Amino acid sequence: MKFFCDPKTLMHSISIVQKAVSSKSTLPILKGIYLEAFDKNLRLVGTDMEIGIDHIMGANIIEEGSIVVDARLFSEIIRRLPDSEVEVSLQNNNQLLIKCASTEFNILSYNSSEFPELPEIEEEQTHEISQELFKSMIRQTVFATAQDEARPILTGVLMEIEDDTLNMVALDGYRVALRKGKIEAHLNNKVVIPGKTLNEVNRIIGGEEDEKVQISLTNNHALFTVGNTKLISRLLEGEFINYKQILPKEFKSRIKVNAKHLLDSIERASLLGKEGRNNLVKFIITDENMIINSNSELGNVHEEIKIELEGEDLQIAFNSKYFIDALKVIDDETVYLEFTTNLSPGIIKPITNDNTIYLVLPVRLASY
Amino acid sequence: MKFFCDPKTLMHSISIVQKAVSSKSTLPILKGIYLEAFDKNLRLVGTDMEIGIDHIMGANIIEEGSIVVDARLFSEIIRRLPDSEVEVSLQNNNQLLIKCASTEFNILSYNSSEFPELPEIEEEQTHEISQELFKSMIRQTVFATAQDEARPILTGVLMEIEDDTLNMVALDGYRVALRKGKIEAHLNNKVVIPGKTLNEVNRIIGGEEDEKVQISLTNNHALFTVGNTKLISRLLEGEFINYKQILPKEFKSRIKVNAKHLLDSIERASLLGKEGRNNLVKFIITDENMIINSNSELGNVHEEIKIELEGEDLQIAFNSKYFIDALKVIDDETVYLEFTTNLSPGIIKPITNDNTIYLVLPVRLASY
Repeated sequence: MKFFCDPKTLMHSISIVQKAVSSKSTLPILKGIYLEAFDKNLRLVGTDMEIGIDHIMGANIIEEGSIVVDARLFSEIIRRLPDSEVEVSLQNNNQLLIKCASTEFNILSYNSSEFPELPEIEEEQTHEISQELFKSMIRQTVFATAQDEARPILTGVLMEIEDDTLNMVALDGYRVALRKGKIEAHLNNKVVIPGKTLNEVNRIIGGEEDEKVQISLTNNHALFTVGNTKLISRLLEGEFINYKQILPKEFKSRIKVNAKHLLDSIERASLLGKEGRNNLVKFIITDENMIINSNSELGNVHEEIKIELEGEDLQIAFNSKYFIDALKVIDDETVYLEFTTNLSPGIIKPITNDNTIYLVLPVRLASY
Repeated sequence: MKFFCDPKTLMHSISIVQKAVSSKSTLPILKGIYLEAFDKNLRLVGTDMEIGIDHIMGANIIEEGSIVVDARLFSEIIRRLPDSEVEVSLQNNNQLLIKCASTEFNILSYNSSEFPELPEIEEEQTHEISQELFKSMIRQTVFATAQDEARPILTGVLMEIEDDTLNMVALDGYRVALRKGKIEAHLNNKVVIPGKTLNEVNRIIGGEEDEKVQISLTNNHALFTVGNTKLISRLLEGEFINYKQILPKEFKSRIKVNAKHLLDSIERASLLGKEGRNNLVKFIITDENMIINSNSELGNVHEEIKIELEGEDLQIAFNSKYFIDALKVIDDETVYLEFTTNLSPGIIKPITNDNTIYLVLPVRLASY
């Protein structure tokens, strides 16, 4: 194997696949990046056996071939090379020679035959979605996945394809995030993608409005294709919770409020609720006015926000974190908060559409 | 106590004094910021009993007085206030009321009489030095202080005032950093300032070329005055090593080399020397050419740099970290490296002056 390329381009490619490389694996080869020189291309692959990333870049190939090289060392070397064409070639003794200007590295390489192959995914039946839309759908749901592994299925995001609509849903037992978006679908389908996978997909997507992400699904795997990069992930097994049953159909109080003002107020109120007691903040909702209270042994805080109330007055308390997380990812200026009683879930959603819905369970207070 | 002020200005002042506040103290009052409203000013003081920072800002004082408030909570509150004038006032129940737009905080405060007083320093006999110069002198020496407390005196920087020259010296047993600069001195003096103190002084100094830092020294303390901010620190006790004896008076080989190229090459070479063996890099110096080698079980690296050699060829090895640290803070484009034998210290210095000198001890190699 021997090729020439620009070190900056190579570094960019390494940084794409490196995120899938396991730094903690006990198998040295899994700490490596697979390099394959073929035609006029260099393929780079990294995998931790859960996620695999495959990226192709242009290179001046002198001799085809493939090897595996330690990801961390390779990336540190390439990052620090002078700004001049780099030559990478496999030597007789299985060492990889990296030559650039008057710098020469010889580093250990592994035989590529020991590198695990990524699963083959049929790419004929793919769904297509705008990069920009998919990026925002990930951002607006993945934060609500469960962080602990007690119920593994909840660490993932449900992707439910119904005709030309993609529903993405995450929930952790205390809240639900639902985001609907338009997809060019091939077949209806329903899979649960690990949250970690979607974070990596999000990182790879440039976010161009006109560019597409191709999504191919099998029984066990999902393949996301973004330009020259393919990300393959296993799916989470098990039945996802029937989220549609959880979403309330009606409300007794509906508030219209500026999302940024509400976020700022809850963030300030949460400063005093931090130490234990579930980051508790209390909403006292009356006509045209919402008071947000929080108190702890450190002191108390009182916030007032202008609102438009439709329906009944209400006092209700929440874990501030769940409201903050949702308000941070809502792009709309104004939102509705919908409540039924102070013991039933609250809803946060944009006033302009039903594409985004956040549900948060309240905290029962000793006295109101 | 009661005052009005701009929350952004207050936040800036808090961030200045907060660095001296001990976050780990078992005494709650030392986790606090002392606030004193007087005349048209608000004074803020933070101290961990080693360093004290005293800062004065303008404020609209309604009622004079002083209290102490938890630094972390106070700064988090002020940082998140709306962009509107804030009112701060002490209530009857010893609670501090913070009011801004429709936000109201009531937080616990401490009696200011329990707050430790900073030592009084006579400010009549002060030295003056340019902010810009002092900032660069700190940056170019403090990194070479010892990081472990085995010999506490080496965790500080010697400040030696000799007529109109300030010599700043740091050493840790493996290297020396010496920087000379012009000072308007009052009296010759010699003190050792904790490295941590100088890092804080560096942070406070804006670096304006025309502005000065005032330095007042007593037997036990140093006072640095930068505009409205005073930083008081204890001095380190003990005798500093006689660094003048350590600096070699002559050399057998002198190399002229581009500092950036040398730094880049040593940084690349150090990638392979990292795992154990003291980050060893080897210099092979011959006429017009210097080869930098490093190797480990991961592989080897070979770098070549153009140099101008005056004197004898030499092979010598160093801990790359010490060379990298020094080359990173040298502002000059070209440096001299001076060597005598491969067992005696190497010198790094700018070619234009003797104001900056770095000494590094070599590592003895088994074979050359």
